[in-house]
Amino acid sequence: MKVTYRGLLLAVSSSLMYLTMATSVSAAPFQALQPLPKQPPVPLDNPMSRAKIALGQQLFFDPRLSVTGTHSCNTCHNVMAGGEDGRAVSIGVNGKSGTRNAPTVWNTAFSTVLYRDGRAASLEDQVKTHLLSATEMGMPNEQAVVARIAAIPGYVSQFAKIFGGKEAVNYTNIAKAIATYERTLITPDSPYDRYLRGDKQAISAQAKRGLDEFQKVQCVSCHFWVNMAGPVPGLAFQMGEGFYELFPNYQGSVYDKQYQLAEDLGRYNVTGIESDRRMWRVASLRNVAVTAPYFHNGMVKKLEEAVRVMGKTQLKVDLTDQQIQDITVFLNTLTGKFPEQKMPRLPFKPNSSVIDLPLQ
Amino acid sequence: MKVTYRGLLLAVSSSLMYLTMATSVSAAPFQALQPLPKQPPVPLDNPMSRAKIALGQQLFFDPRLSVTGTHSCNTCHNVMAGGEDGRAVSIGVNGKSGTRNAPTVWNTAFSTVLYRDGRAASLEDQVKTHLLSATEMGMPNEQAVVARIAAIPGYVSQFAKIFGGKEAVNYTNIAKAIATYERTLITPDSPYDRYLRGDKQAISAQAKRGLDEFQKVQCVSCHFWVNMAGPVPGLAFQMGEGFYELFPNYQGSVYDKQYQLAEDLGRYNVTGIESDRRMWRVASLRNVAVTAPYFHNGMVKKLEEAVRVMGKTQLKVDLTDQQIQDITVFLNTLTGKFPEQKMPRLPFKPNSSVIDLPLQ
Repeated sequence: MKVTYRGLLLAVSSSLMYLTMATSVSAAPFQALQPLPKQPPVPLDNPMSRAKIALGQQLFFDPRLSVTGTHSCNTCHNVMAGGEDGRAVSIGVNGKSGTRNAPTVWNTAFSTVLYRDGRAASLEDQVKTHLLSATEMGMPNEQAVVARIAAIPGYVSQFAKIFGGKEAVNYTNIAKAIATYERTLITPDSPYDRYLRGDKQAISAQAKRGLDEFQKVQCVSCHFWVNMAGPVPGLAFQMGEGFYELFPNYQGSVYDKQYQLAEDLGRYNVTGIESDRRMWRVASLRNVAVTAPYFHNGMVKKLEEAVRVMGKTQLKVDLTDQQIQDITVFLNTLTGKFPEQKMPRLPFKPNSSVIDLPLQ
Repeated sequence: MKVTYRGLLLAVSSSLMYLTMATSVSAAPFQALQPLPKQPPVPLDNPMSRAKIALGQQLFFDPRLSVTGTHSCNTCHNVMAGGEDGRAVSIGVNGKSGTRNAPTVWNTAFSTVLYRDGRAASLEDQVKTHLLSATEMGMPNEQAVVARIAAIPGYVSQFAKIFGGKEAVNYTNIAKAIATYERTLITPDSPYDRYLRGDKQAISAQAKRGLDEFQKVQCVSCHFWVNMAGPVPGLAFQMGEGFYELFPNYQGSVYDKQYQLAEDLGRYNVTGIESDRRMWRVASLRNVAVTAPYFHNGMVKKLEEAVRVMGKTQLKVDLTDQQIQDITVFLNTLTGKFPEQKMPRLPFKPNSSVIDLPLQ
């Protein structure tokens, strides 16, 4: 299997750029399976605060960040559900679709890179590009985004309080606030996590068989560590250093055509580097039972089928129906506890619609 | 001014069909200005319960109720904001738009009829038609809606518990649950309400002048009673008896053309009755400062301009700039307290996307 990453995988070292809040960091021998931390790694230049989280939550749910006023971050990354939209590919503003399945926003705090092709190095970067994408939020430029938010007194006062300075409402701060909220979207205490922590009854006998298979057939060689997606920032990796796998790793199975697996060149489209052809960020398996459909193009509708396809294309194994059932039952133990949230209230511009203002 | 309604407006009588939970019902002399009750009128055949409200909230926020899985009730009636979408007209599934401005869902518990043309007699009826409208949720038929919800175990168990019976997940019960949640969307305790209850400092001197003007120039002749929209069910009116006004009442002003006020024939399109031409349900002024743009077609972007237009077209009055400012300041006192809500969690079908299931 072809896997690319930089940095020393087996050494657990904290990053200079990141202040890790995980309680389990140690220099202990490498354990491939680890419970999800309840606290995210936090970049030193964007510390978290209650006020910033609250602001970020409002912005995350605010459709006025899209050119038509119809799409918020939550439209395609629905935190009331699995953090995505249940569609093969999302529909952005003006009916436009991209070509990739929206990945979940849950537990992205533990991603080293964002987007399926790893083209954003941080949650902050990711926000900045989503807002300006013509197939997503569709805003024409950074100034237009800032103008929308700056037109709303209830936002202006929050930005001033949190970020200070004369031009507190700026593009970087908008991204920082949203990223801060996203770092709170963590689903700890899944049955799997409780099992790893020592509660032997937390998962069923079938799930335990599934976990054994998951390790034996080597699913775990990519889907490991706290987020079941390889390294996380602040532990072994620097933020922005992606952990990628070739997909399909073994080309030529019937699935390539059936699910159009090989058409999108993945990370190659970002870097133009030959060895990046069909390289994809390893996807987290956390909450995978609630984030159908599957794969970068959303072409596989059922988790059982996704397991079968992965066996064939990545590991060159024809998994038996029993193995697939067992692994799927195991994967269902990765559904964590979604934290309770208060619904935000969006501030307004009195007597005037903000999306009717002319764009710059 | 042409206003149509049935029933005896000045008598306060409780409806046989409705159990009113308002505490202020009495046979006292008619008072045009009344504070908003904190409890909604509730139809006897759809009593409220905590469990039903919680279910209705989940459904209200669930985009799987639309054919494409992209639009929930909340998409166009955003309860995190003013209960609408800040657009002139909404964009439904598949990029389709209707021709009318989405009215707010806040305080619709106090509406006698729903839709701007009054074509739904209850909140329950309104849900049923929205789901099947090609320009809104776009579901092909009732069975398809029921099949979507019935595919989700977490919904099935709730319906069974709340409604009982073998086929608890049915179209009527889906509508009942959503309508029940909508009845909780009440914004009491605005400065205006506190003023009416005796707190003379609750609104400014300018707002008091505005309130005087509002009464003197006769805005109040349509915008009265608890919802500032005429009668409410369970007080004088039966549910389903609409309170309509002709708009524009005085045709021929410059605004007819500027804002295309006379093109939509309103209630006439529903009934075909000549006297219903350009009759519109009187809109509530509650929270009007946060629900721009204005009027049935959303063509007026600012509240001040909406006041100016209403003076000219409805009352044949050229309001002065001072009057308009004062009335606008008064209207801003009608912004109530939006209740805190917990964000719902949407139940899921394990390992499978629901919107990928074939439609019936």
